[in-house]
Amino acid sequence: MKVIIVGGVAGGASCAARLRRLNETAKILMVERGPYVSYANCGLPYHVGGIIEKESSLLVATEQTFHDMFDVSVRTGCEAIAISLKKKTVDLRNVATGEVSTESYDKLVLSPGAAPIRPPLPGIDLPGIFSVRTVPDARTIREWLHRGSEPRTGLDSYTGLQVVTKPKRAVVVGGGFIGLEMVENLSHLGLEVTLVEKLNQVMPPLDPEMARLVERYLIKHGVRLELNDGVAGFRQVADGSLEVLTGSGKAHPADVVILAIGVRPETALAKSAGIEIGQRGGIRVDEHMRTSDPDIFAVGDAVEVKDYVTGQWTLIPLAGPANRQGRIAADVIAGRDTRYRGTQGTSICQVFEAAIGQTGVSEKTLLQLGDTDFEKIYLYPNSHAGYYPDAKMMAIKVMFRKSDGLLLGAQVLAEDGVAKRIDAFAMAIQMKATIYDLEEAELCYAPPFGSAKDPVNFAGMVAANVLHGDMPLSHWSSLDGVFILDVRNPAELKVESVPGALNIPLPQLRHRLDELPRDREIHVICRSGGRAYFATRILLQNGFKARNLSGGMLSRSHAASSH
Amino acid sequence: MKVIIVGGVAGGASCAARLRRLNETAKILMVERGPYVSYANCGLPYHVGGIIEKESSLLVATEQTFHDMFDVSVRTGCEAIAISLKKKTVDLRNVATGEVSTESYDKLVLSPGAAPIRPPLPGIDLPGIFSVRTVPDARTIREWLHRGSEPRTGLDSYTGLQVVTKPKRAVVVGGGFIGLEMVENLSHLGLEVTLVEKLNQVMPPLDPEMARLVERYLIKHGVRLELNDGVAGFRQVADGSLEVLTGSGKAHPADVVILAIGVRPETALAKSAGIEIGQRGGIRVDEHMRTSDPDIFAVGDAVEVKDYVTGQWTLIPLAGPANRQGRIAADVIAGRDTRYRGTQGTSICQVFEAAIGQTGVSEKTLLQLGDTDFEKIYLYPNSHAGYYPDAKMMAIKVMFRKSDGLLLGAQVLAEDGVAKRIDAFAMAIQMKATIYDLEEAELCYAPPFGSAKDPVNFAGMVAANVLHGDMPLSHWSSLDGVFILDVRNPAELKVESVPGALNIPLPQLRHRLDELPRDREIHVICRSGGRAYFATRILLQNGFKARNLSGGMLSRSHAASSH
Repeated sequence: MKVIIVGGVAGGASCAARLRRLNETAKILMVERGPYVSYANCGLPYHVGGIIEKESSLLVATEQTFHDMFDVSVRTGCEAIAISLKKKTVDLRNVATGEVSTESYDKLVLSPGAAPIRPPLPGIDLPGIFSVRTVPDARTIREWLHRGSEPRTGLDSYTGLQVVTKPKRAVVVGGGFIGLEMVENLSHLGLEVTLVEKLNQVMPPLDPEMARLVERYLIKHGVRLELNDGVAGFRQVADGSLEVLTGSGKAHPADVVILAIGVRPETALAKSAGIEIGQRGGIRVDEHMRTSDPDIFAVGDAVEVKDYVTGQWTLIPLAGPANRQGRIAADVIAGRDTRYRGTQGTSICQVFEAAIGQTGVSEKTLLQLGDTDFEKIYLYPNSHAGYYPDAKMMAIKVMFRKSDGLLLGAQVLAEDGVAKRIDAFAMAIQMKATIYDLEEAELCYAPPFGSAKDPVNFAGMVAANVLHGDMPLSHWSSLDGVFILDVRNPAELKVESVPGALNIPLPQLRHRLDELPRDREIHVICRSGGRAYFATRILLQNGFKARNLSGGMLSRSHAASSH
Repeated sequence: MKVIIVGGVAGGASCAARLRRLNETAKILMVERGPYVSYANCGLPYHVGGIIEKESSLLVATEQTFHDMFDVSVRTGCEAIAISLKKKTVDLRNVATGEVSTESYDKLVLSPGAAPIRPPLPGIDLPGIFSVRTVPDARTIREWLHRGSEPRTGLDSYTGLQVVTKPKRAVVVGGGFIGLEMVENLSHLGLEVTLVEKLNQVMPPLDPEMARLVERYLIKHGVRLELNDGVAGFRQVADGSLEVLTGSGKAHPADVVILAIGVRPETALAKSAGIEIGQRGGIRVDEHMRTSDPDIFAVGDAVEVKDYVTGQWTLIPLAGPANRQGRIAADVIAGRDTRYRGTQGTSICQVFEAAIGQTGVSEKTLLQLGDTDFEKIYLYPNSHAGYYPDAKMMAIKVMFRKSDGLLLGAQVLAEDGVAKRIDAFAMAIQMKATIYDLEEAELCYAPPFGSAKDPVNFAGMVAANVLHGDMPLSHWSSLDGVFILDVRNPAELKVESVPGALNIPLPQLRHRLDELPRDREIHVICRSGGRAYFATRILLQNGFKARNLSGGMLSRSHAASSH
């Protein structure tokens, strides 16, 4: 059996190694257009930022490794340019020489990845505008950022203009994972960073009100944030530096521009061969990672996946799924019945001292699908026991099914403890856990690491209170004209209050029930929702109609500003 | 309805608060023998060590809080001394005055906790020997540790002897959670610490070979470790300091001694009332937390729980379960059908820069139960992507059922990323996940937080390879007289080699198969098990009988020394 693998990074490299372990006799040829296989593309922003100092650190496995360990032939600088399904051949072009050869295959695996979107905007090819996808990309950006750092004479080799100083001002276009990681890394290098994002939020997979928290955090860390403003073009000004021009007519000066608008599955090869492409623009595969051609498999960022929660086809470019898909394709080629379960979109992104994590489905996706059988809660627990130093407040949003309590998704933002909680939520979703399972989950606790009621338990308890009918919920979006009871202490109201709300501090509530209306629904509010829950219980048991405003005042500003 | 709750810390306090939320009219009386309710006993070692500076930080909720928020009457300094099941009354003694009163109940909840074991050894009442259970305990230890820190004259108030210097030498007796936390905290204060442990390992819930790693780590951090040596007594020497005398005849000098031998359920009250006590010495309850008396519930460290994995009755004193049990008792008293699922023993303990975590069942427990339907694996992955700074090697042991792949338990030790993995394993066990579920779990990954194949995935993949028959396993304990193939590079052998092993570096293996025996089982070894897996695959596919030595050389020293 001869197997050709197109693309030698995450999915392709995993596939090659796994296939060899399952089949010692197959001929395996892995071709890669770029100069390296199996490199750590997730590390590129950190290499640009100097956190990962050596470029060589990014080269996880070399051609030699693949040859020595796995008896896999590797050709780098080799692009697959055409597939003949009938003849079962691939045309391979040597990128350096242009020479084309044809190789036959019994099984073909496509792992071409996704390419950074680079819209045909005026000036996009000006020097100083970069994408971050490959090791050479990172190298070029590093060189650019460090030019001018030593005294030199004459003209700059890129611009032909006099070098004045090393780059100081960066514009990052696009606020997704790569964009935010580049913002952090460029800030780390001491650059002034402007983030330009066409959408009304950063981190598109997040719900907008959770993204608000990220945006505030960026601003707090000195990032200039420009939302709702797409890039219209680029121009070079007199001193050789750039300006990023936006749809609203602004011009942001920049010594370096990072394009991180997003990625698009590399489907040209598959498409030209007549392999089916899905509606979302990725290669369509079945649960065995098989394309419309039974001898051709596809894995990684180029394929459409089934959303594990919604069952919808979608594009979720993530390294973990790419690796597992590569393994699964290898299993299937080796004759095993291994299946891909779908992708649930578990991710985490470091932004300065904080991390943003999520898993499962977002509220906006549920709304897009017209799904109304869900509820959401907000909570703001400590990352670990409050009495142990350096506990940080976590912002957590959880979506769950109203009819049966199934956990649908979670979003977490904090300066501590995010990965622990996201992985607990992620494993729960993978196992189709309900919020009752979260409530009873036995998670690790010691004062430096958590609380006896971990935030994940706490989310389950809050959600269970909702589904048991113990705590009807209210949200900021539905607060117009309702009766609001604020059970905080008067001192807290001085900091921030809710116009028109009646204030009865919780300790007084049982004695002041006669001040409350029996004919109106009472929406109860406190700082984070805890005391309001206690108050809601008192009210409901005394015959009032009451709802707890989920997340209390802490949900207010970001919830409000997302409308 | 009148409900009396005996014990006002974790389980009792949770029960009181929850019950009020479910029943606004019940009369709730919570009595606590000590001076405080709802204090953070898990924080006590850190208060002694000065990490948690203020004693007031440990007081999570006060009597006033319970009164104001929950309309719960609290009596501190009040001990329940007798229960009449027939009359449904409790006799309460005022600890300060000795006055006894009798209160009737409709429902009674026992949450007395567990008391530190304090064996009647010679000299155990000498000044300077302490347990760490209550806020006053911590205060007394702090005072003791700081005496002599300021110049003073005259005689020491404790010993009656001249104070020379502040305490410098500590002996901690017992190497469980509290013992290890005290070791860390006393070291943090600059004391020389000796840890004396009667058993042949620290951290008894761990398997001994994993405990070896903890022990080495303690020694590396300057702790004098004395295993296999129980305390026989204590004596005061001429300068007023102590000596801890052990069974083997040693005398360890000490200016302060911490007794952390373990805890024993406080069952005297229940026992004297005729309430059923289980074989393990805890109060026996059903899944509703109901004792043998239908109107009496018991929760927390005083009760026996069903092991979630094995179904056996056991004692697992942990704060998380205690809190949830308190909630469940409240639910049931309020008329709800809530059930406790059992305890899976999820825990984490910080030791210097490292954390030790575990969840589910240990190998030694399985062996004690005569269970042979399990396999174990060892792995040593990085805590996050190796190319991102500060990745730490994790030591992971996973137990799973051979017949169906059910995950049974996991133990993790590392200086980074332990909580993330323990919680993923813990949630998996809670959801009765198999190792195939671990393999496919979609966990969060970005270079600072993990790897595209997270250690948890990796554990699943390794275990799945075993169950698929792709990688028969071998362990150090079964290596006598077998044929050993070492596939590491010659340079690695110079550091540590295996006597009698044949060395063929992996890259040469395919060309040197004729050097290997076809009639003997080949046990393959490398550093951590990765290359040995690749070699095992090559051998099996070439008709050899081969096994991978789980965890390779990294498993050697601790595995060997545990036999």
